[in-house]
Amino acid sequence: MIRTGETICAPATSGGGAIAVIRMSGPKSISICEKIFKPADKKIKLRNQKGYTILYGEIHQDDELIDNVLVSIFHAPHSYTGEDSIEISCHASSYIQQRILELLIKNGAIAAHPGEFTRRAFLNRKMDLSQAEAVADLVASSTKVSHRLAINQVRGGFSAEISKLRKELLHFASLIELELDFGEEDVEFADRNELGSIVARVKDIADNLASSFMLGNVVKNGIPVAIIGKPNSGKSTLLNAMLMEDKAIVSEIPGTTRDAIEDTFIIDGIEYRFIDTAGLRETSDIIENLGIRKTREKILQASVILLIDEESDTAESINGRAEEIREMIRASGKKLFILINKIDLSSPERLAELEKNIRLEENESLLFISAKEKKGLDELRFKLGQVVEKKRLNSDGVIITNIRHYEALLRVSESMVRVEEGLKNNIPEDLIAIDIRHAIHYLGEITGEITTDEILGNIFRNFCIGK
Amino acid sequence: MIRTGETICAPATSGGGAIAVIRMSGPKSISICEKIFKPADKKIKLRNQKGYTILYGEIHQDDELIDNVLVSIFHAPHSYTGEDSIEISCHASSYIQQRILELLIKNGAIAAHPGEFTRRAFLNRKMDLSQAEAVADLVASSTKVSHRLAINQVRGGFSAEISKLRKELLHFASLIELELDFGEEDVEFADRNELGSIVARVKDIADNLASSFMLGNVVKNGIPVAIIGKPNSGKSTLLNAMLMEDKAIVSEIPGTTRDAIEDTFIIDGIEYRFIDTAGLRETSDIIENLGIRKTREKILQASVILLIDEESDTAESINGRAEEIREMIRASGKKLFILINKIDLSSPERLAELEKNIRLEENESLLFISAKEKKGLDELRFKLGQVVEKKRLNSDGVIITNIRHYEALLRVSESMVRVEEGLKNNIPEDLIAIDIRHAIHYLGEITGEITTDEILGNIFRNFCIGK
Repeated sequence: MIRTGETICAPATSGGGAIAVIRMSGPKSISICEKIFKPADKKIKLRNQKGYTILYGEIHQDDELIDNVLVSIFHAPHSYTGEDSIEISCHASSYIQQRILELLIKNGAIAAHPGEFTRRAFLNRKMDLSQAEAVADLVASSTKVSHRLAINQVRGGFSAEISKLRKELLHFASLIELELDFGEEDVEFADRNELGSIVARVKDIADNLASSFMLGNVVKNGIPVAIIGKPNSGKSTLLNAMLMEDKAIVSEIPGTTRDAIEDTFIIDGIEYRFIDTAGLRETSDIIENLGIRKTREKILQASVILLIDEESDTAESINGRAEEIREMIRASGKKLFILINKIDLSSPERLAELEKNIRLEENESLLFISAKEKKGLDELRFKLGQVVEKKRLNSDGVIITNIRHYEALLRVSESMVRVEEGLKNNIPEDLIAIDIRHAIHYLGEITGEITTDEILGNIFRNFCIGK
Repeated sequence: MIRTGETICAPATSGGGAIAVIRMSGPKSISICEKIFKPADKKIKLRNQKGYTILYGEIHQDDELIDNVLVSIFHAPHSYTGEDSIEISCHASSYIQQRILELLIKNGAIAAHPGEFTRRAFLNRKMDLSQAEAVADLVASSTKVSHRLAINQVRGGFSAEISKLRKELLHFASLIELELDFGEEDVEFADRNELGSIVARVKDIADNLASSFMLGNVVKNGIPVAIIGKPNSGKSTLLNAMLMEDKAIVSEIPGTTRDAIEDTFIIDGIEYRFIDTAGLRETSDIIENLGIRKTREKILQASVILLIDEESDTAESINGRAEEIREMIRASGKKLFILINKIDLSSPERLAELEKNIRLEENESLLFISAKEKKGLDELRFKLGQVVEKKRLNSDGVIITNIRHYEALLRVSESMVRVEEGLKNNIPEDLIAIDIRHAIHYLGEITGEITTDEILGNIFRNFCIGK
């Protein structure tokens, strides 16, 4: 799907608001815009304007005035896409946007595919592939940490590092291939010690980056949390208390509330997602009637399981339920929190007795709370915050958030292991060269130095329209 | 609420999309922006840029990069508000928008009230009040006709006409007041014939404009349509058929579907709204159990009532139901459509018999349909289209869509009637002058030449944030 000869257009903003922006990019952008736009100053011609300037005027279809707009002009290569581009800022009526888009299309533009503007930016070398991918992450970022990882990747530090490793490997690959050309002559252009040390370094870096993916994935997609417990143990009260407390923290600047994702809360810039809360959204959970299968599914999806028991439960029954869950999550890395709810109805002696008799395994927590009276929730938040090892987040090191990069890095590492073994066992040069070429290929896929239409298609399909 | 010394900021776009625009207006706009924005070209200073230019660069909080943005600069008075203004075009992440708004506020801006940008444009004489009101209508316009009326009002033809009438009346009011100053001397500066003719003209124009309000209101708010009928008569099938047909017509340009308003369809650029369809959205309406009170409420809200009967009903029972509805809507101007559904199950003889025996009053329609097989729906659309007298819409005359203007025009007309009577009956000049002053006042309220904080508050409260 290469159609860079065409001029594309799309809405760049969405939904309500006061203004909307329509974007156009490609060789005919300016001439198409001239056909429908009359600058307020009639002496001015759009095509004579410098880049990075704005004109006020009217969009017309024949004699009909469609809207008063601002038109921003960008000339190739100094634009987001690297092509001639136009942005039309109009009133945010869906009708007006549709009319303007129809006019652009009628005059020679085509509707853009999702991500096509960024795809063109990549093809025109305005950014590499991992930077392009980070643009989508940046648009989707909803927390401090996901924002920081995305913007670091947009800045290109990660790609620069990958590119450098790739160049070093390329250098050695050429030297080894040169040796092969000399065939029987037994020359050695590539210093084996030096090669060994760069292979070790590439492997180290690849392993290190790959190992950050678990954390990066948590940052990007949030931590799934399941609330498990008997009917009436207070699951919905806890859910509402946790969410309400978080919503109150959300900034009061109008128009910026994040009401889209309802069942999430944020601790230290990391998003936690309550999963499968459909049955818990009511203030009472009497109606809940979940079978064991449903509960099992919830536990499988979650990284953290909150098991709610009541202070009136026996330690024995609580230990029994906890054990059932342990059976399911054994060796999975999932965390179990045992919460004793309704402590407002209890006595210190009773709670001390429970604490003494409830059995905990390593990495498990026991907390005493009153969801109704919002007691113990701060400690719960604190403990949930500790689920994520944040030391690495707070360092300046790169963290991988993209599964495509993760898989490529694993393959790079595997290739490096084979090269190391090959060097140790005096495997023939041509086989070593193949493994180095593999690693070079996978490194190139990350930055987009090597790419296919399929890879690009997969990446940009998930972008939004207009980006 | 006058706070024009302050610099205001707000998001101007909303929801998803690829980019978001944040707006700032007021004396400190440029200096506040300078504190957080670093142009990519470090030699450039924001304050030295000409208006209507764009800079690319980075938003920073201390050392932290928040986003790569485009900043558009406008200098007073050449901006929407007439003040120094800045627009920041950033990635459409809610987190990024919130951070940038927080930074602007931290550096001295305040969060804008709804409509405050347009209110400032009005106060700075960039537009009059009726034009400012039309901006909100334009943003909300969702059909061809509502768009046309709004954009005509934005262009200011209506205000110009009102302003001109007001000036003529002002001229006469001063002359009459001059006569009053001369007291007993019995001079006559104001030509009574000329005054009579201008009073008649003002009254004509006010009446004519006021009479367009019914139509304008229909254009702006749509026509409410009620579907009434026994359970199982096919109400939900008809609803779905009408909506589905309309949705198929909606443009296929991605990102522009109007999915917000679900129960509307458009005929000839006029929106029809099905009211109270909550119980009808299921494919079967067996569960519906509406009491007579609910039905009555629906009929009271509607302008068009679709009474659905079945071909198997007797003419007598249909006549009975129709009569019940007639009792409720007598002299209200509401239209009754009697629909005989399920004609696919019927015979021509049966339908002929029903047609012969069903009684219709003036302005009522009888239609034979099959909602299931989508028969007769084109005729239903055609008849619904005729509910609106469109001749006036297609002329170039002004149509009032605003109830505030309507009420002011009614008062102008009443004042003119009193002036006419006064002139005829030789009422003392000072009383005539009072009525002319009243009319001048109400005309001035329309354009905003006369205004109060309360009027402005009421108008701009209904604007969106960022407009």
